[in-house]
Amino acid sequence: MIYLDNAATTKIFPEALQAYCQTSENYWGNPSSLHNLGTKAHTVLDKAREMIAKQLGVATDSIYFTSGGTESNNWAIKGTAIEKRQFGKHIITTKIEHPSVLQSMRQLEMLGYQVTYIAPNKEGVVSAEAIQKAIQKDTILVSVMAVNNEIGAIQPIHEIGAILEEYPAIHFHVDAVQAVESVREVLTCKRIDLLSLSAHKFHGPRGVGILYKKIGKMINPLLTGGGQEKNLRSTTENLPGIVATAKALRLTLEQTNNMISLRDELWQYLEEEDNIKIFSPKDGAEHVLCFAMHGVRGEVLVHALEEEGFYISTTSACSSKKGVHSGTLMAMNVPDDFAKCAVRVSFSKDNTKEEVQALIKALKDLKHKFAFLRK
Amino acid sequence: MIYLDNAATTKIFPEALQAYCQTSENYWGNPSSLHNLGTKAHTVLDKAREMIAKQLGVATDSIYFTSGGTESNNWAIKGTAIEKRQFGKHIITTKIEHPSVLQSMRQLEMLGYQVTYIAPNKEGVVSAEAIQKAIQKDTILVSVMAVNNEIGAIQPIHEIGAILEEYPAIHFHVDAVQAVESVREVLTCKRIDLLSLSAHKFHGPRGVGILYKKIGKMINPLLTGGGQEKNLRSTTENLPGIVATAKALRLTLEQTNNMISLRDELWQYLEEEDNIKIFSPKDGAEHVLCFAMHGVRGEVLVHALEEEGFYISTTSACSSKKGVHSGTLMAMNVPDDFAKCAVRVSFSKDNTKEEVQALIKALKDLKHKFAFLRK
Repeated sequence: MIYLDNAATTKIFPEALQAYCQTSENYWGNPSSLHNLGTKAHTVLDKAREMIAKQLGVATDSIYFTSGGTESNNWAIKGTAIEKRQFGKHIITTKIEHPSVLQSMRQLEMLGYQVTYIAPNKEGVVSAEAIQKAIQKDTILVSVMAVNNEIGAIQPIHEIGAILEEYPAIHFHVDAVQAVESVREVLTCKRIDLLSLSAHKFHGPRGVGILYKKIGKMINPLLTGGGQEKNLRSTTENLPGIVATAKALRLTLEQTNNMISLRDELWQYLEEEDNIKIFSPKDGAEHVLCFAMHGVRGEVLVHALEEEGFYISTTSACSSKKGVHSGTLMAMNVPDDFAKCAVRVSFSKDNTKEEVQALIKALKDLKHKFAFLRK
Repeated sequence: MIYLDNAATTKIFPEALQAYCQTSENYWGNPSSLHNLGTKAHTVLDKAREMIAKQLGVATDSIYFTSGGTESNNWAIKGTAIEKRQFGKHIITTKIEHPSVLQSMRQLEMLGYQVTYIAPNKEGVVSAEAIQKAIQKDTILVSVMAVNNEIGAIQPIHEIGAILEEYPAIHFHVDAVQAVESVREVLTCKRIDLLSLSAHKFHGPRGVGILYKKIGKMINPLLTGGGQEKNLRSTTENLPGIVATAKALRLTLEQTNNMISLRDELWQYLEEEDNIKIFSPKDGAEHVLCFAMHGVRGEVLVHALEEEGFYISTTSACSSKKGVHSGTLMAMNVPDDFAKCAVRVSFSKDNTKEEVQALIKALKDLKHKFAFLRK
């Protein structure tokens, strides 16, 4: 089996799973308990938070734990909307965000908020100028992803941040779920107020997300209750999951190899084939390559490759089962004829040159097979 | 170590932790993925849901997974509030709910909703009649816990359900986080629309909750996005956690021993001591006993017992560190002098008669020690 669907989910690192088990067995007290089982658990929680903050190059007190990337995005957006509702109800985002952002916007629209959706160019990149033009007096939030999940297009976060320097009252949220590899660099943009990460996208456990929230910037809680996470995200802390996340993030960010050579090799082949169209921009994120084999529907290619032992996906996992075409490709005005043929290959650092070469061979064989079938 | 703080959290069953690990290793695909790693994961998800539904005696399609009891409560309440906002903005709850319920109400009040808080009697039990009297034309939700977390008082869910038969438009939510032992019986009240459970309270993993939602009753999502959980609770499913939860729930509900004899033995001792006051009602839940040793502050008794190897808590874990007195005892009009001395012993089925006898001995010794100190 050759797994090339790492943008959908990754396999948990053995070390992270081990950390999960050890924490479950040794630090299972409720961190809010008065007795020393609670105190010990709280110390471990503090350490995990500190480790993550250090890896990301931010203050420990700016790290909050959630149940995943979806909750981090929902909380950042809806929490801002509630917090700043007296100041305004206008939000700016893009047409190519993850559904957890877009659907949060839809819900807010239903509740009386107004949302401007910026379209990308044909490379799948939004312009900072377009965001600037959309700013109104009552704009309370700008939410833009760092790396698009469907084609890997890198968005101009630093440029947007520079523009927002002039608008200090607007919250700036960045969905960095697909940008783990570059998250430290993204976070050097000091204008970012809120940033989302998801553990299972970097070989961490399911059910754990991170929200970076700049100290001093306020958002309303989405989950209210016992007052955990500085009274902003209540629930008994998922300590085993949090410790496993800290471990996985460190291992991910400490790995020195990258995936550029893998992507380049696949790119080179795809570019040479006349009936293959690449949708990912050349300078996109190193782990994603989205393309179409003309005339072969995405799900057909996914299943044909699966028979050869390769696991890839049509655009995103979230939309793949519902037969929905890629929102990103639609926003890029890719004709439906091409969009329905799109597939996404996404690497992890565990993938090898040999695996990519095997994929190229399989794609060549399938191309001939499909050409033959069409005759 | 003798752990008697099971209402705060429980240790995960080894079988549940094993199920977590096996699922992480063998079914780590994204259940939304098209390829067979996704399909297999989805099949396992379906099976876990079915197992849980069967254990609870409800329809498989009425089970939803969340990140914990707090999210289940938040979702049930806020999801109803958003869904039914056109019909009314009045909610009825009690003064003795868990903070995840009470703080959700506070947030809704801030957003223009009106909440009636029913006071309990001096046994810590609310009356169904009081709820009935509070119903208005614009009431959209009644939320009452099945078992109080601080003193174990059992609330009259069936009676409230009978009253609500005449008000079919009102959603009826039951926080059953502390009522796992009796949850099947609680769910025989067919008027319940929504019911919350938390896995870590029954030896399951952290970070997993269950929301039972009657088929046909609508609530708005709290987490929007990729459309998981029938489009009502988006996020990549925490499959290892869900499978471990199914395992833990089955093991818990299949255990035939109960905790009544443990509670009775402790009760008998406490009742005989003239300077000890019991707050839990005699017919309360079998796993909780709340009492005070007059003149000894709760945290002092907790730490003194800890030195002897016993882990108990002041009222609830959520409030214990903040030095907040028990909300339930306050609502019962227990004088502050007594309330500040309250401690909670909470059993699991793993506790033994010998452990309770050892606790009684320790309490006797401490009583003398504290009496001596006061001289």
